[in-house]
Amino acid sequence: MSHAIFLSVDLDARSTNPLFQQLYDALSQSIQKGRISAGTQLPASRIYAREIGVSRGTVQAAYDQLIAEGYAQARRGAGVYATDISTTAQEWVAQIKPHHAKAPVPNPVRPFSHGVPDMRAFPHALWAQYVGRVARAEPAGLSEMSDIFGDWPLRCAISAHLRDWRGVLVSPEQVVITAGAADAMELVVQAVAGKNAWVGLENPGYPMLARVCKTLGMRPHWLAVDAQGACLPTRDVAVSVITPSCQYPLGSTMPIARRQAHLAVANWLVEDDYDSEFRYTGRPVPALMALDRQQKVIYQGSFSKVFSNGLRIGYLVIPDRLIAPMRDVLRQRGVRASTMPQRVLARFMEDGAFYRHVRKMRRLYRGRREAFLAGLQEHFDDILMFQDHGAGMSVALHYTKLLDVDKVQENLQTAGLECAPLATYYGGGGARNGLLCGFCGFDEAEISQGLQQMKAALAPLTP
Amino acid sequence: MSHAIFLSVDLDARSTNPLFQQLYDALSQSIQKGRISAGTQLPASRIYAREIGVSRGTVQAAYDQLIAEGYAQARRGAGVYATDISTTAQEWVAQIKPHHAKAPVPNPVRPFSHGVPDMRAFPHALWAQYVGRVARAEPAGLSEMSDIFGDWPLRCAISAHLRDWRGVLVSPEQVVITAGAADAMELVVQAVAGKNAWVGLENPGYPMLARVCKTLGMRPHWLAVDAQGACLPTRDVAVSVITPSCQYPLGSTMPIARRQAHLAVANWLVEDDYDSEFRYTGRPVPALMALDRQQKVIYQGSFSKVFSNGLRIGYLVIPDRLIAPMRDVLRQRGVRASTMPQRVLARFMEDGAFYRHVRKMRRLYRGRREAFLAGLQEHFDDILMFQDHGAGMSVALHYTKLLDVDKVQENLQTAGLECAPLATYYGGGGARNGLLCGFCGFDEAEISQGLQQMKAALAPLTP
Repeated sequence: MSHAIFLSVDLDARSTNPLFQQLYDALSQSIQKGRISAGTQLPASRIYAREIGVSRGTVQAAYDQLIAEGYAQARRGAGVYATDISTTAQEWVAQIKPHHAKAPVPNPVRPFSHGVPDMRAFPHALWAQYVGRVARAEPAGLSEMSDIFGDWPLRCAISAHLRDWRGVLVSPEQVVITAGAADAMELVVQAVAGKNAWVGLENPGYPMLARVCKTLGMRPHWLAVDAQGACLPTRDVAVSVITPSCQYPLGSTMPIARRQAHLAVANWLVEDDYDSEFRYTGRPVPALMALDRQQKVIYQGSFSKVFSNGLRIGYLVIPDRLIAPMRDVLRQRGVRASTMPQRVLARFMEDGAFYRHVRKMRRLYRGRREAFLAGLQEHFDDILMFQDHGAGMSVALHYTKLLDVDKVQENLQTAGLECAPLATYYGGGGARNGLLCGFCGFDEAEISQGLQQMKAALAPLTP
Repeated sequence: MSHAIFLSVDLDARSTNPLFQQLYDALSQSIQKGRISAGTQLPASRIYAREIGVSRGTVQAAYDQLIAEGYAQARRGAGVYATDISTTAQEWVAQIKPHHAKAPVPNPVRPFSHGVPDMRAFPHALWAQYVGRVARAEPAGLSEMSDIFGDWPLRCAISAHLRDWRGVLVSPEQVVITAGAADAMELVVQAVAGKNAWVGLENPGYPMLARVCKTLGMRPHWLAVDAQGACLPTRDVAVSVITPSCQYPLGSTMPIARRQAHLAVANWLVEDDYDSEFRYTGRPVPALMALDRQQKVIYQGSFSKVFSNGLRIGYLVIPDRLIAPMRDVLRQRGVRASTMPQRVLARFMEDGAFYRHVRKMRRLYRGRREAFLAGLQEHFDDILMFQDHGAGMSVALHYTKLLDVDKVQENLQTAGLECAPLATYYGGGGARNGLLCGFCGFDEAEISQGLQQMKAALAPLTP
């Protein structure tokens, strides 16, 4: 049954046309045009009269006329129902078709697209259990915004996470929940820099950051990237945004000396630690923030890559001196992060379920990574080169021969593959040719098949 | 039990200090400093060895030394646990205190603050049921982002809602889910206007809009507001944002002639329909969008005022010709709206539970509004004037006598009241003095008490 309540009638009390007649006209047209579909129960006259601000008698008179003329039928003791007027209904449907509109088909995840977790391995059932548990035990936690910085239990869980996984001791008071990476960047640059300020950005780096800065009227200062990660800025910048754990997109880890050099020269330094949970070999590297003695570092973390992109949850860890300015920015621009996932995620982390999931995904991705790298060496040893950084969710491949990059993209796309050209990430120019390929979203068989397709796509282009 | 996994050790394989010794040093210091708290179980040596990339024997040797020196204790068949070293732990806690940080106390909702629903009347239990049901029946709907415009079932439910409540026929393909009003505005102005473009904004109006425009490098062109709502722009503007159903903050409804005049001159017109569900007298007014024959109107709706501010869910309805540009904007700047509330809200609307809630709230607010207006007339007839527009969640009060507005704010604040000065809403200058008071968040007794306090606060200032 439809719950239409037909509130949208436009009656004019000053018209010479009586109100019941106007109401009849509106309803009969709606039934004719299919806006009120066949079989729909019209509202009880008493309720409807109150809704639209007329007397009950007016509604009853209009209903009587509808019934008399066949637009509606009264069923004994069960109300009044719109009659089927199918030909005209068809006409309207053809014109507007809200209920015949097709649901969009999600784009398939094509090899070797990157940047999102494999949602086939998402713990849907377990997550649903936690959702249900929070809904029952602390329902206000799902819908009430407690603080402009986000849900307190989640901020506590993140503080514990950073202590255990990243070697940083921070108070939950320093944690700010965001609606993902772009939201976080907008908050940071507005809190530490003004219009026309220079912002140090890695080249190559995450293209979204440059767009955020430009949209907010700030100017990117490009930081070259060498084997040790981002180089120092060559001019005074308000803030630099760097990826010391795993340079995006090239993958290197910044050594301690370079970290200290950045700390020494920075006004503010954003450590974008987007996927540090995924290190497959060697020992985890403590966060740059752990070295900060001068309240310069803003740490940015994300659940989009490690857990679910759809929840739109990320976080910032800010030094004490930035707490008041950040509250101002949030007050001015409004909070974007939904409360609904926050408490659930907090309980999920507290119980260790989150860590079990991350470990499971790391095992899964480690195997996929090995399969991907082995396949690359088998098939592409002559034309592609890569460095094994033992971390991350994607691998940057460099061409060792001169290839027509446009033709490469065209052939890959025709083959149903999605490998991002490395040039996309060089906002500051001077691009190295190559491809950024993700290996996390595909099982070993898909990887093997994807690499075969890639080989076939590139074969005609190699000398 | 803590789930700490102590990943943050920094071992150096090239050091002359053996690895087990380095690990022992790191762990003993962590226990001393309280980073590993007393009673915490250390990870099983096999798992820990794999996590930090050393041999199992290395971990075992470090553990043996910790046990030997009293930093840890082995419990037969139950693992190794950190010992209580309480004095030094205290020292660390005093310094960092992540787990002793105080949860922020939410600000109490003080009379007569406005703009958010009364969450005491939120249907927590029913909402929790829907959350649990979606979690069980369609768990992927909670965490997977299906489309950049939002969840399809929610877009269908909103399309049906607009048909039934607002008299507009739109396809769900035209509906874009947003993370609330500011997010929606950013999307709209970026889709229809460029840097330095002029944007028509009501004066008085919603201050957030002017901030959004300025942040994005656009220029506000102020539209005067008279008894019929926003006046026409006096220069060419890329887009105007108006509130025809219930002018914010003054409350008038725009008559048909003014609506048509806006439609005639506009390039783009945003109809901000933020609380049209709350009309208490007379008949509902169809949306301006229903008059649009030229694909000029962008409709903006919100669940923040009518349902829950914490969910951060709003929506835009855009004409067909704006669909492709809007997809581009969303791709460029990233989606902010969380998927998690979307499917649940869709099911909640489809079943009619949403409408029952809205009707319940309207009944509740109607009573509160009557109490508030009656109290105003009783206590403030000599100094405050207002117009009864029969709609909305707040009332704009104008002073009929010359009052010291700073002193008014000071006295109201001292009395524990929160009434926004009307001047706040006049971004374009020329403010009328007065107060914007919300009546929805307070029951009749609270309203009566608040008005008494307000009377006492204003009494010393009235001639």
